[in-house]
Amino acid sequence: MNKLNKKIVVIGGGTGVFTVLTALKPHFQNLTAIVTMADDGGSTGILREEFGILPPGDIRRALIALSVSDNKMLADLFSYRFEEGVGLTGHTFGNLLITALHRLTNDFERAIQEAGKILMTQGKVIPVTREPANLMAELEDGQIIKGETNIDIPKHDGHLKIKRVWLKPPVEINPNAGKAILEADLVIIGPGDIYTSLIPNLLVRGLKEALQKSKAKTIYFVNLMTKFGETTGFSASDFINTLKRYLGEDVLDYVILNNKKPSPQRLSAYMKELAEFVEADLENIPPKKNFMPIATDLLRPRGLIRHDPEKLARVVRMIL
Amino acid sequence: MNKLNKKIVVIGGGTGVFTVLTALKPHFQNLTAIVTMADDGGSTGILREEFGILPPGDIRRALIALSVSDNKMLADLFSYRFEEGVGLTGHTFGNLLITALHRLTNDFERAIQEAGKILMTQGKVIPVTREPANLMAELEDGQIIKGETNIDIPKHDGHLKIKRVWLKPPVEINPNAGKAILEADLVIIGPGDIYTSLIPNLLVRGLKEALQKSKAKTIYFVNLMTKFGETTGFSASDFINTLKRYLGEDVLDYVILNNKKPSPQRLSAYMKELAEFVEADLENIPPKKNFMPIATDLLRPRGLIRHDPEKLARVVRMIL
Repeated sequence: MNKLNKKIVVIGGGTGVFTVLTALKPHFQNLTAIVTMADDGGSTGILREEFGILPPGDIRRALIALSVSDNKMLADLFSYRFEEGVGLTGHTFGNLLITALHRLTNDFERAIQEAGKILMTQGKVIPVTREPANLMAELEDGQIIKGETNIDIPKHDGHLKIKRVWLKPPVEINPNAGKAILEADLVIIGPGDIYTSLIPNLLVRGLKEALQKSKAKTIYFVNLMTKFGETTGFSASDFINTLKRYLGEDVLDYVILNNKKPSPQRLSAYMKELAEFVEADLENIPPKKNFMPIATDLLRPRGLIRHDPEKLARVVRMIL
Repeated sequence: MNKLNKKIVVIGGGTGVFTVLTALKPHFQNLTAIVTMADDGGSTGILREEFGILPPGDIRRALIALSVSDNKMLADLFSYRFEEGVGLTGHTFGNLLITALHRLTNDFERAIQEAGKILMTQGKVIPVTREPANLMAELEDGQIIKGETNIDIPKHDGHLKIKRVWLKPPVEINPNAGKAILEADLVIIGPGDIYTSLIPNLLVRGLKEALQKSKAKTIYFVNLMTKFGETTGFSASDFINTLKRYLGEDVLDYVILNNKKPSPQRLSAYMKELAEFVEADLENIPPKKNFMPIATDLLRPRGLIRHDPEKLARVVRMIL
């Protein structure tokens, strides 16, 4: 299959970016991932604290997704998490690799490039900002939460809604991220945890402005499932309204909703996490000029409740 | 330059193997390193203890030497030692890579092959044995020392001579090492720390027998400098006699001595380590049928007192 040479920028973090890049890799040759630098949990959190580097975890996942190496072991190696050793337990190998390359190059983006060479990535991975910041959240009861991981894995009562999030200190956009957005034909936001993977990008000064200035079409893939403590009780329209609060009214051209409900068996696996299926409440999402909500079957046929790569890619090809 | 297709096996450990492989890599395409598994210091020692794997340090060095990748950063990355982080300080990146690959493959030699793919090595690196063992030493006063690192970085009075060394428990040769020796055209032993890098190979059951059985010519490169606590006061003939005690009388075809003394300035840097120039006392090394001592200038013209790669390669080409 010939790969299309349209410039596609994917904004997010976590497994969402991995899913989209993996889905688009067979079809498009010019992919750029812009990933959040607010992650502060696990291996990444330790490396942030001890090495003072930007968080490598989401970078690593995006690089693996963009790898075109036929050495299958490489991706496994980058994802490998040490489970033994007093000092090593919990560290992800790819994070250590990016950290070591940072120390050798003294340049985080150069380190990402060098890791990309080893993985033979086709495409770019760009940190949304070059400056470290913490994600902060205020809950509806006035409680302040510090740190992405404390929102992601909530220590608070998960029935409380998040009122707002912000970065402390405020940070500026990485000029390479701004450039990629301005030159893009298409920008994809999500899927991904809205407060902990998507909005931390939008909070970076200059990002919203770049999106407003860019001629790229902008798509938002709404999540398939809610996340307790972050999007408890959200329907698709809640996701969209929340995103718009940080993105502005006029940026999104398309929002893509899944309307295929997984089987009760598949959903039951999510009950212990209190995660629920996101209803595609199209009736609450009125189309406007230059704004089109689309509901379609995006569900993977089996396994974890995730976007199906082929179905996702088909939507993207249709819009382009 | 066309590379010669003679089969060369290099036996040793530490920087000696690195030096020889680096020197021969431009000239020979069929290089195999057989390296000691007695190392138990530093990063390697921690990984041995915590992960129960064979020691990766000497493997790593040999792999780097055999890399033909034009990605210069790869070798730096493999050699990079973490200097920060509670759990990471002191660990060498390449050791962590081999450890992670071991966990992914559950096979130490497969892990070495996979690391070699990443480094694009030309040639093979084979652990001398597949079984873990500790190096033991008895000093002339009867004291017993346990562990390679305690001999290598002596805690004992360095004026005491080492009486004998052995492996505890005794271990068998890796069949792949035996096969490489039997098929070799040339076997090179050393340079290297005689008790901690060379003899730990010869102590492995079956290795001496493989050398005796092999039709390969066998060369021993005598060290340029003594090492306090291990070869204090040794001249070239002491090195050779020590090696022969573990190797038998009839294995060595050539011993290669350096007769070019470094400048006093270069030697003075070694005074604090109590390391001394090894005298090429040819008069104490009588040639025999099938045994030829050769003294020649092998010294690097400047810097650390090491074998010069070109001079070393020239000797090897002459003998082949």
